[in-house]
Amino acid sequence: MTPEERPGALVSFVGAGPGDAELITLRGLRRIREAAVLIHDRLVPAALLEEAPSAAEIIDVGKAPGRHCLGQEDINRLIVDRARTCRRVVRLKGGDPAIFGRLAEEIKAVRLEGIPFEIVPGVTAATAAAALAGISLTERASSSTVILATGTDHTGRQTAALDWDLLARSDATLVFYMTVRGLDAITGTLMTLGRDPNEPAIIVERVGTRQERVVAGRLSDIAGTARAARIESPAVLITGPTVLRASVSLTARRAIVSVPAAMPVEALG
Amino acid sequence: MTPEERPGALVSFVGAGPGDAELITLRGLRRIREAAVLIHDRLVPAALLEEAPSAAEIIDVGKAPGRHCLGQEDINRLIVDRARTCRRVVRLKGGDPAIFGRLAEEIKAVRLEGIPFEIVPGVTAATAAAALAGISLTERASSSTVILATGTDHTGRQTAALDWDLLARSDATLVFYMTVRGLDAITGTLMTLGRDPNEPAIIVERVGTRQERVVAGRLSDIAGTARAARIESPAVLITGPTVLRASVSLTARRAIVSVPAAMPVEALG
Repeated sequence: MTPEERPGALVSFVGAGPGDAELITLRGLRRIREAAVLIHDRLVPAALLEEAPSAAEIIDVGKAPGRHCLGQEDINRLIVDRARTCRRVVRLKGGDPAIFGRLAEEIKAVRLEGIPFEIVPGVTAATAAAALAGISLTERASSSTVILATGTDHTGRQTAALDWDLLARSDATLVFYMTVRGLDAITGTLMTLGRDPNEPAIIVERVGTRQERVVAGRLSDIAGTARAARIESPAVLITGPTVLRASVSLTARRAIVSVPAAMPVEALG
Repeated sequence: MTPEERPGALVSFVGAGPGDAELITLRGLRRIREAAVLIHDRLVPAALLEEAPSAAEIIDVGKAPGRHCLGQEDINRLIVDRARTCRRVVRLKGGDPAIFGRLAEEIKAVRLEGIPFEIVPGVTAATAAAALAGISLTERASSSTVILATGTDHTGRQTAALDWDLLARSDATLVFYMTVRGLDAITGTLMTLGRDPNEPAIIVERVGTRQERVVAGRLSDIAGTARAARIESPAVLITGPTVLRASVSLTARRAIVSVPAAMPVEALG
């Protein structure tokens, strides 16, 4: 049965996209407009919350860095609890729910209770950041692989599980999510293990919001440039040959590009 | 200036999403509705083309496998040509334009002519396929990296440039785009280089369309299962620990899951 036909509970895990309300999908918006309960993260656009029915219960489970309003277990319990009594629960997550969204834990909780669910995909931060910077993440001749990684765990420490040697040796385009606190460690490790210090790199802060900014540089100096520009979370780091052609999208009139003196002219777009 | 303010030409590279018209972003739809010229790929939903103004010129540059209607150089020239005389050119691409969309080549062509452009990101096939299969591509404890690759070049041969050893050694979730013809070679190479033959794997065919199907299995048998089910292009292969929890989304009422007898019950959802 489709969600429309099922009389009982349904949890829709919906990707809100990267922070710009217009970058949600049509289906994602439709789910919000049908929600009985809307459980959302901190970084979801406020304009989307206003699309929920006036009778809907709206619950912010947003987690500021270092300040967990609600633990993951509490969120899982909340979703299950509301789904038991309500027809439509929308769990609205920034970006795409399947990419660094802790979706697996929430799905596990609803499946253990036998609650039906669906996933409505969204635009993930990697492609939104690439779009803002005016670049492709792949190039037919040079970059046939894209690696999405986090680099740091939730406490800001470098991820031990990551195969850093693998990342450093590859000529793939690397996209690190949630990188601000670990930026020196990430870029340092990549260079130590053999990644070219001259490789072009950009950091995109708060992509899709009014505060969005792009800083451009090289792997060797991007951490310092970001620090000087006081780049804050959330931000993604993109590094690889395709970044050389970064420019800033016309739609990003609020974007500021900081380019070190040594940056090749091509990178200015 | 934003596109709205600029009186001259603008090329918008728009991600149409994975094949379901409802999975385009609100901004993507808006750009289509404003288009003077709409240049689209073969696999873009027909319903989206109907959203273009009735006066818009609609050009299909779709490439069926082995039957190139228009070469990439011709497409580049077409975009530049129309942008010179028209205010709004929308270049509509399946999925997200920055992921295996040959975006870099088209951007290069418009930049060489000094034509302003923007990129409107879309839902890429990897996350759409994961959503349909009811899985996360990342898991906090086990899978902190996602690798997007093609595996085969445009002729169907295995990509030489790819660091296969890297892919095989990693415990990342692997997503291969455009894999149907190279499926035996891809899975065989991964196993030869050390990837676990028992690792769960799924193939999602024509995600987001009425013909969408999911076949599930293990790395060792997924190629045979796909062949038996006559899976055709376009399809993506997802393999990695998180795939174990695959089920099929409620929205996918047309999906058929073929599960080999040896598949663990958990994979049935």
